[in-house]
Amino acid sequence: MRASNYLFSTLRDAPSDAVVASHQLMIRAGMIRQVSKGLYTWLPTGVKVLKKVENIVREEMQRAGALEVSMPGVQPAELWQETGRWQKYGPELLRLKDRHDRDYCLGPTHEEVITDITRNELSSYKQLPLNLFQIQTKFRDEVRPRFGVMRSREFLMKDAYSFHISAESLQETYDVMHSAYCKVFDRIGLDYRPVQADTGSIGGAYSHEFHVLADSGEDDIAFSDSSDFAANVELAEAICLKQAPDAPTEEIKEVFTPNCKTIAAVAEFLKLPVEKTVKTMLIKGVDEEGESTIIALVLRGDHTINEIKVEKLKGAVVPFEFASEADIVAKIGCQPGSIGPRGLKEAGVKVVVDRAAAVISDFCAGANKDDYHFTGLNWGRDCDDFEVADIRNVVEGDPSPDGQGSIVIKRGIEVGHIFQLGQTYSEAMKATVLDENGKAQVMHMGCYGIGVSRIVAAAIEQNFDDKGIKWPLAIAPFEVAIVGMNYEKSDSVKEACDELYDALLAQGVDVILDDRKERPGVKFSDCELLGISHRIVVGDRGLKEGTLEYKSRETGDGEDVAVADALAFIQQKLA
Amino acid sequence: MRASNYLFSTLRDAPSDAVVASHQLMIRAGMIRQVSKGLYTWLPTGVKVLKKVENIVREEMQRAGALEVSMPGVQPAELWQETGRWQKYGPELLRLKDRHDRDYCLGPTHEEVITDITRNELSSYKQLPLNLFQIQTKFRDEVRPRFGVMRSREFLMKDAYSFHISAESLQETYDVMHSAYCKVFDRIGLDYRPVQADTGSIGGAYSHEFHVLADSGEDDIAFSDSSDFAANVELAEAICLKQAPDAPTEEIKEVFTPNCKTIAAVAEFLKLPVEKTVKTMLIKGVDEEGESTIIALVLRGDHTINEIKVEKLKGAVVPFEFASEADIVAKIGCQPGSIGPRGLKEAGVKVVVDRAAAVISDFCAGANKDDYHFTGLNWGRDCDDFEVADIRNVVEGDPSPDGQGSIVIKRGIEVGHIFQLGQTYSEAMKATVLDENGKAQVMHMGCYGIGVSRIVAAAIEQNFDDKGIKWPLAIAPFEVAIVGMNYEKSDSVKEACDELYDALLAQGVDVILDDRKERPGVKFSDCELLGISHRIVVGDRGLKEGTLEYKSRETGDGEDVAVADALAFIQQKLA
Repeated sequence: MRASNYLFSTLRDAPSDAVVASHQLMIRAGMIRQVSKGLYTWLPTGVKVLKKVENIVREEMQRAGALEVSMPGVQPAELWQETGRWQKYGPELLRLKDRHDRDYCLGPTHEEVITDITRNELSSYKQLPLNLFQIQTKFRDEVRPRFGVMRSREFLMKDAYSFHISAESLQETYDVMHSAYCKVFDRIGLDYRPVQADTGSIGGAYSHEFHVLADSGEDDIAFSDSSDFAANVELAEAICLKQAPDAPTEEIKEVFTPNCKTIAAVAEFLKLPVEKTVKTMLIKGVDEEGESTIIALVLRGDHTINEIKVEKLKGAVVPFEFASEADIVAKIGCQPGSIGPRGLKEAGVKVVVDRAAAVISDFCAGANKDDYHFTGLNWGRDCDDFEVADIRNVVEGDPSPDGQGSIVIKRGIEVGHIFQLGQTYSEAMKATVLDENGKAQVMHMGCYGIGVSRIVAAAIEQNFDDKGIKWPLAIAPFEVAIVGMNYEKSDSVKEACDELYDALLAQGVDVILDDRKERPGVKFSDCELLGISHRIVVGDRGLKEGTLEYKSRETGDGEDVAVADALAFIQQKLA
Repeated sequence: MRASNYLFSTLRDAPSDAVVASHQLMIRAGMIRQVSKGLYTWLPTGVKVLKKVENIVREEMQRAGALEVSMPGVQPAELWQETGRWQKYGPELLRLKDRHDRDYCLGPTHEEVITDITRNELSSYKQLPLNLFQIQTKFRDEVRPRFGVMRSREFLMKDAYSFHISAESLQETYDVMHSAYCKVFDRIGLDYRPVQADTGSIGGAYSHEFHVLADSGEDDIAFSDSSDFAANVELAEAICLKQAPDAPTEEIKEVFTPNCKTIAAVAEFLKLPVEKTVKTMLIKGVDEEGESTIIALVLRGDHTINEIKVEKLKGAVVPFEFASEADIVAKIGCQPGSIGPRGLKEAGVKVVVDRAAAVISDFCAGANKDDYHFTGLNWGRDCDDFEVADIRNVVEGDPSPDGQGSIVIKRGIEVGHIFQLGQTYSEAMKATVLDENGKAQVMHMGCYGIGVSRIVAAAIEQNFDDKGIKWPLAIAPFEVAIVGMNYEKSDSVKEACDELYDALLAQGVDVILDDRKERPGVKFSDCELLGISHRIVVGDRGLKEGTLEYKSRETGDGEDVAVADALAFIQQKLA
């Protein structure tokens, strides 16, 4: 590509609503422009990067045996009604009517359509397993689109759906997809982690997210510092190595703690370490007869509650819900800020103590009396008959659940997600095939997503400096830039540029020759802003010595290269 | 690809609503499935063909200097309001509201969005010309979707938009696009014609359509049998080589023609050749003062009126409208079936005679008196003071307007359309750049569409037989099929198949190895239905002789090929 025939559209400044680096840099580098809130046009530089990501994804999906299909973006309501999602799905599902007043939606996902296809096309277990994918623009009507293409309303997605006669076959394809995803992110050149994840609203039993690590990520991920373990913070098990509390050394005392509304305030008022306090929260429960109850959750003062874990407790209401203040006052006789475990059992409240809170001694807790707390409290002696469970979020320094090393927490951007859906959709839509005995069996399903456009933004969040983007080579808009100094006036510069340019093109290198009538400074800063991996400057001064100037965008290192060696030099850099 | 890992989904019968060959064959060959009226899922075989077409289109657009972009499918109403198309565009434009109740549409075309982009990004004539394209799923809410993907609601389209400082620059890029389109259709291997076209509702001045010739086409195209001339029948000029009528030889006679409502009936009743008759139609007009008038159009009895040509007549109402029967009776005193040119001038009706009707003599026409016609009528002697104009559709045998040969008429499927839009959109949206003198100039625009998914259907309409599709090699789902006879049981067949398969894959050949446990008949008919260009059958009987069986899908010709020569043989077929 000659720069004189290209559309740069670079900007010195980013718009004020662009708060994350990738959004700012994608605007400044002329990759995207907003057409309407959360709707973007991708300009040539953006499309070049997007297509490189798309091609890598397609190639690895095909290598993994998946077959490409293309489903409509506009989907009939009837299919969504079959699974009940027409009603259940929130306003992110953009519903619309056609000219005949029939109901449709803009597809944010395609479980219904693909299950409809396969229940018609597949009749025998012999046709399984089958893995179908598409790469397609999807629409999700985000209430607050933000961060550029990271959370836009239209986005490019690779979604795949696999069909199986058994859970074992599903597991096999799931593993193949897991490794194909690793190949995709390896090839792109990203620092990423597959993490255990919650399956959320899409349903199903087992799932991994793929996160690109970056400070701007929206998710917290818990890693082991010594092994491959990685899980969404919400899912990571909090291990407690200590088996039981130490023996009591203090007497229980009721102390006056006026105006202390939080456990931190109590600890400060009483000059106690927060690890020697517990906080007690009351949530709504339901007993075996279906009657409303209250459950007390007891955590160490410095820990936070994990709602997903709590929802798995027997008798807890799903979704998680705190008891109302009125209920608490009526049942316990004090405000929520003074609740403590001692005496709750007698008030008919089941007590669940977090593992870490269950192994402390001589601690402080609410006295179930406004403005009073206990100190010197000890399990067993002062308070018994409680359950112990894992109900908190892990924190840095916790032991890793796999027994190797300790937890560190980093932020991640989710760019991929694989699910074992099981039979959720196939059962609702009666998608069966005949098994070896001629009996109809509901198929098992997996689904596998990659946010193609989001990868572009995530790659930037992980690779930029104050000058611009530093693309991994595999997805750089151009691999090499040749910058001609005074190209339009110097015949020798023009000749050297054109010769190298033609030689690189002939080798299939994605090269841009900057032949514009612009100052060198403009050309250099465009090169850096766009993140072109390798730069060769061709000038009269160097040519007199028979050299060209090379600079790496990644390391910033430069060196002079003999004109005669330039082609081989670059080929080696690209190898 | 191994057939055992592929999804065939071939069917013996097409659904009853599939009336054209491409629709029937795309369903039967497992290329598409209907999800909802006019909405299709493309299955693996369909996607393979579609992607091949898409890649050829992309490559030729890039070679022609166009840059790829990607605009949103959901477009804000505000932009369409700027050009007035929000109101003007019919119900084909699917309008919708987002969760915040803002107005959007699903884009059937992108003139507004691209003009909005370029008015912001472009500031100087130095950035021009610029040609931006995208390949994208579009939506048009057809009232009656039909013919499969030929007229579906969602379809894959390549649309490009060029921007220029002058009409001359637009003409240059237009010519480049014209030749790029020819390269696309040449490479795909289609019998097509670029034809002069009307610009229709999209506006602008100059336009060509690209038609794939096929009997099932919806458009009539007039060609010269001796030159490159081709035009939509509605646009082709009707030339008349005869300069003036012959001298009268008959006297004018008023004859009784009871119950003859059409000119054909009159000719038969009077035993006259229909070329010796004229028919006269009255249409609505408007005079220079804006008063309603009536204009008479006189055509030879065997010719048909061309409304587009009539609308260009001075004083004709646009859109074209016939005068009401009541007006005719009031003004002329007879029913429409008995109208003729003689005496109309005296009734205050302007008479326009088609070129071909103006050079006949001794002819028959209505007598402006119910159930009476004149015979022996002659221009000049019996009726004068009329205009002569080209107001009819060309017919086969007419002289070609370029002076070379005669017209033949064939049916075509429109697969591409290029327009010179001029300044229609750029003016409405104030899209200007500064010229050499620093003065703001409204840009000139061109737009260029290719129906990517429609090409797939059109290619089938032109290439099929009773066994299935006969793809041009460039877009066949597979170039070569290797059919193993008894593959799963015969080691020698398996070995020969695998060896040839691996060798072809290594050469980059798109080959499918049919290793399924199916009867040979099933494999052969799938091959033929799918239209795979070259077939190699590997069987034990042949292998004993050291040969494989080759068959061409295009010609149906077969021959035996020595195992050792097979690779070279196929390579030569693909060359």
